Amino acid sequence: MAVRIILVGTTHPGNIGAVARAMKNMGLRELVLVNPRYFPHADATARASGAEDVLAAARVVDRLDDALVGCHFAAGASARSRTIEWPTFQPRECAARLIEENAGGDVAVVFGPEKTGLSNDDLDRCQALLTIPADPSFSSLNIAMAAQVICYEIRLATLELPEPTAPEMPQATAEEMEYFFRHLEEVLTDQRFLDPENPRTLMRRLRRLFFKASPDKNEINILRGILTAVAVDRKKGPEE
Amino acid sequence: MAVRIILVGTTHPGNIGAVARAMKNMGLRELVLVNPRYFPHADATARASGAEDVLAAARVVDRLDDALVGCHFAAGASARSRTIEWPTFQPRECAARLIEENAGGDVAVVFGPEKTGLSNDDLDRCQALLTIPADPSFSSLNIAMAAQVICYEIRLATLELPEPTAPEMPQATAEEMEYFFRHLEEVLTDQRFLDPENPRTLMRRLRRLFFKASPDKNEINILRGILTAVAVDRKKGPEE
Repeated sequence: MAVRIILVGTTHPGNIGAVARAMKNMGLRELVLVNPRYFPHADATARASGAEDVLAAARVVDRLDDALVGCHFAAGASARSRTIEWPTFQPRECAARLIEENAGGDVAVVFGPEKTGLSNDDLDRCQALLTIPADPSFSSLNIAMAAQVICYEIRLATLELPEPTAPEMPQATAEEMEYFFRHLEEVLTDQRFLDPENPRTLMRRLRRLFFKASPDKNEINILRGILTAVAVDRKKGPEE
Repeated sequence: MAVRIILVGTTHPGNIGAVARAMKNMGLRELVLVNPRYFPHADATARASGAEDVLAAARVVDRLDDALVGCHFAAGASARSRTIEWPTFQPRECAARLIEENAGGDVAVVFGPEKTGLSNDDLDRCQALLTIPADPSFSSLNIAMAAQVICYEIRLATLELPEPTAPEMPQATAEEMEYFFRHLEEVLTDQRFLDPENPRTLMRRLRRLFFKASPDKNEINILRGILTAVAVDRKKGPEE
């Protein structure tokens, strides 16, 4: 089971190389790049400085969903405070949680573009926010520095924790969760509970709730069974 | 009383800028440069990226002794294991010690040249060695990354980790959860998803799932709203 580092829309290739080096220094190897502006690039290779193997093995994909395939827990790095309350972890707690969740399958830490950070849409795909307790008057870390801090905490957590025991049933993966959310949204729209013209934050709130539950594969099947039963019942109509 | 960061013989000016940014991010401001190869330099300014004030205020001196004037405790960063036994700290212990010693006056963390690290002669001026627990097969961190890790630990030690903030919305109470489970059971029975003659473990599984989510009052209201919508819709029947 791996801890993935996912970089979304990185604009400076040097940062990609620096992240690769930081990862390898801390014993991590799975790097996924979502739409990097320049990659491969000489600056990335130069800054990797001994971690060229991590760069060479990096997967490059078009969408965050593709990067998250097979992951059941992802923490999204964010310096800004967001309007909606989302479970927020500092690096140490976040690393402990990642290692704990890692017993059930792959997990990830996601970093956004240098200037803007992760979009709300990307953060919706993460079960938790990661914030680094920087000085509030100058709180934006370089992306590779932020990656170094969390990789360091992941290494400490890995070295400290006894071997975790695997849960009996594996966690639902990111794609299974997305299928469930899509199904849920359809049924709620069909039931007129969700107004597609004015969805407000309903789906985001439901995402947060079900992420907190971190369902296993069995549980997600039960939930989808319920949605199917509701939809079928609506088609059939009442019996009385 | 300050915690100083001292860089000895740094060859790449970009690293000096990156260290300045890492320091400022973590609330540190006193940077001392011993014989930097190039400084000031455009690369240093570029990588400082908002921490130009730290660079501008940096003292430049010829010898480590000059940089250490007024300090009574210094930790020298070292990746290599040294022939001589020296008190060696990992970043977390080192930060705790620095903050403790800082009560009695200025303290410092000292980093050597990128290629060679601190000489034994320079380490002799330090009261302790700082080593970062990197992967032994690839243990040499970039100097700015190493500075980021120790500055981060210094910041945590300074903040003494604040209490985690309570969520804004109180958790659903046990009775609210029970009302919800009763409501859920009714709707599922009505939908024929749950057979009261043969309920098996369905409700127990759903209880476990929603307990894991530990909903707050808002969330439990959303869930009950959905159940009500489903029940009303079933009474009305389909519109087509």
